[in-house]
Amino acid sequence: MTKNLLISEIARLVGGIVSGSGEKIITGLNKIEDAGEGELTFLGGAAYQKYFPATKATAILVKRDFEKSRSDLIYIEVDDPGKAFLVILTHYFTPEITLQGIDPSAYIHPTAFIGPNVSIGKNVVIEEGCVIGKGTKIFHNTVILRNTVIGDDCLIFQNVSLREDSVLGNRVILHPGVVIGSDGFGFTPDQNGVYQKIPQIGIVIIEDDVEIGANTTIDRAALGHTIIKRGTKIDNLVQIAHNVSVGEDTVMSAQVGIAGSSKIGRHCVLAGQVGITGHIEIGDNVIIGAQSGVPKSLPEAGTYFGYPAKPLNVALRTEGHIRNLEKYASRIKKLEDKIVQLEKLLEKPQA
Amino acid sequence: MTKNLLISEIARLVGGIVSGSGEKIITGLNKIEDAGEGELTFLGGAAYQKYFPATKATAILVKRDFEKSRSDLIYIEVDDPGKAFLVILTHYFTPEITLQGIDPSAYIHPTAFIGPNVSIGKNVVIEEGCVIGKGTKIFHNTVILRNTVIGDDCLIFQNVSLREDSVLGNRVILHPGVVIGSDGFGFTPDQNGVYQKIPQIGIVIIEDDVEIGANTTIDRAALGHTIIKRGTKIDNLVQIAHNVSVGEDTVMSAQVGIAGSSKIGRHCVLAGQVGITGHIEIGDNVIIGAQSGVPKSLPEAGTYFGYPAKPLNVALRTEGHIRNLEKYASRIKKLEDKIVQLEKLLEKPQA
Amino acid sequence: MTKNLLISEIARLVGGIVSGSGEKIITGLNKIEDAGEGELTFLGGAAYQKYFPATKATAILVKRDFEKSRSDLIYIEVDDPGKAFLVILTHYFTPEITLQGIDPSAYIHPTAFIGPNVSIGKNVVIEEGCVIGKGTKIFHNTVILRNTVIGDDCLIFQNVSLREDSVLGNRVILHPGVVIGSDGFGFTPDQNGVYQKIPQIGIVIIEDDVEIGANTTIDRAALGHTIIKRGTKIDNLVQIAHNVSVGEDTVMSAQVGIAGSSKIGRHCVLAGQVGITGHIEIGDNVIIGAQSGVPKSLPEAGTYFGYPAKPLNVALRTEGHIRNLEKYASRIKKLEDKIVQLEKLLEKPQA
Repeated sequence: MTKNLLISEIARLVGGIVSGSGEKIITGLNKIEDAGEGELTFLGGAAYQKYFPATKATAILVKRDFEKSRSDLIYIEVDDPGKAFLVILTHYFTPEITLQGIDPSAYIHPTAFIGPNVSIGKNVVIEEGCVIGKGTKIFHNTVILRNTVIGDDCLIFQNVSLREDSVLGNRVILHPGVVIGSDGFGFTPDQNGVYQKIPQIGIVIIEDDVEIGANTTIDRAALGHTIIKRGTKIDNLVQIAHNVSVGEDTVMSAQVGIAGSSKIGRHCVLAGQVGITGHIEIGDNVIIGAQSGVPKSLPEAGTYFGYPAKPLNVALRTEGHIRNLEKYASRIKKLEDKIVQLEKLLEKPQA
Repeated sequence: MTKNLLISEIARLVGGIVSGSGEKIITGLNKIEDAGEGELTFLGGAAYQKYFPATKATAILVKRDFEKSRSDLIYIEVDDPGKAFLVILTHYFTPEITLQGIDPSAYIHPTAFIGPNVSIGKNVVIEEGCVIGKGTKIFHNTVILRNTVIGDDCLIFQNVSLREDSVLGNRVILHPGVVIGSDGFGFTPDQNGVYQKIPQIGIVIIEDDVEIGANTTIDRAALGHTIIKRGTKIDNLVQIAHNVSVGEDTVMSAQVGIAGSSKIGRHCVLAGQVGITGHIEIGDNVIIGAQSGVPKSLPEAGTYFGYPAKPLNVALRTEGHIRNLEKYASRIKKLEDKIVQLEKLLEKPQA
Repeated sequence: MTKNLLISEIARLVGGIVSGSGEKIITGLNKIEDAGEGELTFLGGAAYQKYFPATKATAILVKRDFEKSRSDLIYIEVDDPGKAFLVILTHYFTPEITLQGIDPSAYIHPTAFIGPNVSIGKNVVIEEGCVIGKGTKIFHNTVILRNTVIGDDCLIFQNVSLREDSVLGNRVILHPGVVIGSDGFGFTPDQNGVYQKIPQIGIVIIEDDVEIGANTTIDRAALGHTIIKRGTKIDNLVQIAHNVSVGEDTVMSAQVGIAGSSKIGRHCVLAGQVGITGHIEIGDNVIIGAQSGVPKSLPEAGTYFGYPAKPLNVALRTEGHIRNLEKYASRIKKLEDKIVQLEKLLEKPQA
């Protein structure tokens, strides 16, 4: 995506002061190490200083006290270069979703209610009783089964699968391949050990401003509902089992798995590949490190890590001890040798 | 899903005795903590007793000796409330699959054989030589490539991908986004270390009564077949590699991964995120705890856990020792101090 | 897939010498333990010798010095039976992709450029500005959003999702359900801890000869590009986050996850379920064992394993110590007992 933006105009947006020609044009944004001719970048924290001497950017956002040692760059001085960059990115470069209108190849059941200004792509299927709120865009080949309710201004990409009775709030984003409302994994063995399916008659509720990553799966509840609360962001290939509840403003990185009926609090962070066992509770403001396995409830706010997950300081001390095992083993051996010597020494005088 | 069911009729189904008005109607089922007006619930094990005083259910299944301390509830007394609840759930609330007929937008190759009473949704593609058994339902936008054979009364949800020559038994359920028969991951490096593809010419066989979760992937064999045997249940986002064999009545939770050519026995339980390396054998009746990594064969029945997986009692003892490492380290230190003291003591008399 | 192949013809292809009737026909290939009437197999390494006495194959590839103790088999003697088998497999049995022509149900925007000899299946959607190179085959129900460029002779299976501006080289293979170019997982909390989306305006670049497994997801970059370089092979259900770079000829097994901005070198091997944290670098020729978690850069070639990942020899020694913890604990106890005895002994003479 390229634009033609006056540097002076950009500086005005972020309250910055230009050193160099504000009349020049930038056409794009990039990271300092990758930026080229015509691009604006920013100088982030200490780790990025090394890229400054060689950056090929045309313009750069820097802190107000920055020493402008290169004369070939146009500087925009601001309080917080990273934040200013983000403001510019969001203001000028938020991608436009061009899907428009309702494609004639889409199937919309006559009983479905489609709000004003909805866009529906090719080969989309919307079954009976569905409701699609105003301004929502649904990309090609997505399939929405009966009685699903979708709020306003949602963005649903291609090849998404919504099962019956799912409920989505406003401004929900579903990336390609997402599955919502698939049956929970519920079976009971009969007297021969043959598993019989337990009907999964609950639903999935996704509240406002939730974003769900590509190929993530969220199962419907056995009874009641699986719920993802307002503002929570879920990455790709995550598994949310039946009857799970996830609080507001929580983030989950890719490949996290949450087993049935567990409750995750608000403002939590679950890093990549974390596994949460079933029927436990994770409190608010809990941070769980990558690949950790959580076998029991963590009601207290804090940072946890490991397999099984422990408070971070305990996990780090434990890891330190494990790294020291070689030394401990040789210290034990040394002690044993010394004991033998001492025993001999004590036998002698008695002899 | 709501119904209108007489409590006396429900009680008759499960051989229960009603205390209170059997002429009342219940409209749905729910968990004791979530149940409301008009709903039937059940009182499960000890962990659920705490919800009894406050449940808003209209009726509740309880054990025959239960003290009916609340007079506002209608009780149905049975031998096993949980089991009775499941019977009622299955009898009255098994969701109806309403897909009917063969949609004109579906493409069915003239050489494909479609049995009686098959339902095929919109934009489904069924290529040449496929066979679809009687009563099978295939939802919208699913794609089935050449010569795939599907048995009777299967349920295949939307956006499923079946590759060529796959074989499915009867009553198989595939949830949205499942991929069956994708190429196995087989490459051989040439003299320059550039990987050359090994043709994957085997197939996938899914036997009767297997259920496969959303976005799970099962690769075709390099040669011969990958097989999932009768009654096995597989959760979401599971990976089954080429030439794997999974025995009857095994269950696998979400995000399990099984590498190439491994054999899993019957009646096994693989909990979430378990990884099984390639070319090993897991015996019958093996239970493997969540996130465990299995690097070698586990021929004996039993419960295993950990990374690498060990028998559960060994894993728990090991975990106990790891938790004690802090203490062990300080005990070693103390011993070293004492040895120094003893050595001094012994030097002195000799001096 | 069956063929009718003269054994003498097969032997000629691999420079082998036939013992037995070269005029016989074989119809398929199989593993030694599964091969039956009419099939050719090969005798691999020592682990497969046990299958030789009972194999039901008609013909078998063996080493030149092999003792041909069974008279009912036809032997083809070669230098390297496994390699010869692979040559035969590739030569005669590489599956034919029969998709032909451009299906009228596919939607191709008038501005899209479709090269010669391209095959496009049913209900495929190709948006404006896309370019599809010659000989590329795109299976049913795949959706390709605006301005995506695909090279020559690619093979894209069904239900694949390509987001805007993705760039694919030549001979790229995408298995069913793959998602390329979904938004990176980028959010920034506002003053209330509510996450605001960071626009993801970069792209994905997939170079020549890359193969990507079923339901794998590769996110577009925040800025710049996410890149998978020439010849790299990625298995099913893998997650590649925004701005990741993967070098040439690297292989990744199923369910690997690579967090944002990390760089993976050339000729690496990442085994199943490995997790790589964000913003780190993995050097060339690095091998990482299954389920390992990598929290910091591994610039040096070598084999690593564990959680957190360590050099393999360190990991194995550590694991050995962990297995010995029971013994270490009892040795510490024994030392404590002995110290008590020694202390008593030393008290006595002084008494």
